[in-house]
Amino acid sequence: MAYIDLGLDEQEHPGIRGLLQYRPETAKPLGALAEALLRGPHPLTEGERELIATYVSSLNDCTFCTNAHAAYAATGLDSGMPLVDQVLADLDDADIPEKLRVLLRIAGAVQRGGQRVTPELVEAAREAGASDLEIHDTVLIAAAFCMYNRYVDGLGTYAPESPAIYLARARSAQMPSYVGD
Amino acid sequence: MAYIDLGLDEQEHPGIRGLLQYRPETAKPLGALAEALLRGPHPLTEGERELIATYVSSLNDCTFCTNAHAAYAATGLDSGMPLVDQVLADLDDADIPEKLRVLLRIAGAVQRGGQRVTPELVEAAREAGASDLEIHDTVLIAAAFCMYNRYVDGLGTYAPESPAIYLARARSAQMPSYVGD
Repeated sequence: MAYIDLGLDEQEHPGIRGLLQYRPETAKPLGALAEALLRGPHPLTEGERELIATYVSSLNDCTFCTNAHAAYAATGLDSGMPLVDQVLADLDDADIPEKLRVLLRIAGAVQRGGQRVTPELVEAAREAGASDLEIHDTVLIAAAFCMYNRYVDGLGTYAPESPAIYLARARSAQMPSYVGD
Repeated sequence: MAYIDLGLDEQEHPGIRGLLQYRPETAKPLGALAEALLRGPHPLTEGERELIATYVSSLNDCTFCTNAHAAYAATGLDSGMPLVDQVLADLDDADIPEKLRVLLRIAGAVQRGGQRVTPELVEAAREAGASDLEIHDTVLIAAAFCMYNRYVDGLGTYAPESPAIYLARARSAQMPSYVGD
C-alpha cells in the first residue's frame, strides 16, 4: 500500500502508474520527458536507452522500475533478457559495444551524484565514438531515473515481485508510448 | 566549460539554462514539470516549495541549483535569505512551521534514496497537518531536484560563484515561470 491514498486499485496500477493517475498535472510532463528520452528519434536504439534506465534503476534498488524497464530493454535488444541480466551483474564483461559500456559507466556515475562524472569518463565515451547528444542524453536519462526511482519508492508504491508480470506487459505493449500510457 | 559543446556563451546561460537551450525536446517537459511543482496552485506557497528544492539541491552539493532556488525561496518567503540559510544550516532549530520541517525531513530522506522514506516519517507529516497532496508533491519535488542537480553537475555546466548574481536575477524576475524561461 502506498503511503498516500491514491484512490485506485494498486494491484491494477502498480509503481509509477498509480502515481500518474493520482496527479495528472505532474503526470503529463513526467510522461513527456520519458517519451522524449526513451522513444524519440535517436542514435541510440530504444533497447539501449531502456538498458541505461534499467541499469540506473537497479543501482537505486527500485524493484518496479528495474523490472519494468528490463522488460522493455529485453524486448528492444536482440539478445533479450540474458544480456540485460549480464549488464546488471557485470558491466565490465558484458557482451555489448564499448560505446554503450562507457555510456553505462557515465550513467552509473550520475547515479552516485552529478559530480562523480569526470572529464576522463566523458573523454573515454568520446574515444569510443559517443557524440555530444549521446553523452547529454545518457546523463539526463540517468538523472531522470534517479527521479522516477525515488518517486516510486519514496511514496511506498506497490511493485509486483515476479519479473514475468513485467515481461508479459512489455511484450503485449511492444514498446508503448510513455504519453497517455 | 560544460563537458559537451552547448553552442552558446555559458556565462550568459549558466547551469541548466544552457542545457535547456541545447536540447529543446527535453527542455519542454523539464520546464513544465518545474512549473507544475513550484508554480502551480498549491497549499504550500511558492516560497515553501522553492525551499524544498533548495534544501535538496544543497544536500546534493549542486552550486547552481542551490543558489538559484535559494534566491527564489528568499524572494518568496517573508523572512528572506536569513531563514533559507537557517534551514540549510540547522533544520531542527530553524524558525519554520512544524509541518514544513517534517516535509523537509521527508525531502532529505528522498535525497538519500526512495527507500529512506519511512511510514513513521509520513505519519509525522500527517500529524503536523500535511495532506496527501503535500506529501506527494514534497516527495516529487525532492526526487525532481535529484534529477535537475545531477543533470546540471553531471554535464559539468558553469555556475557563477557569487550568490548576489542569483539574487539579482530572482529579484528582477519576481518568481518567473519555468516554461519558456
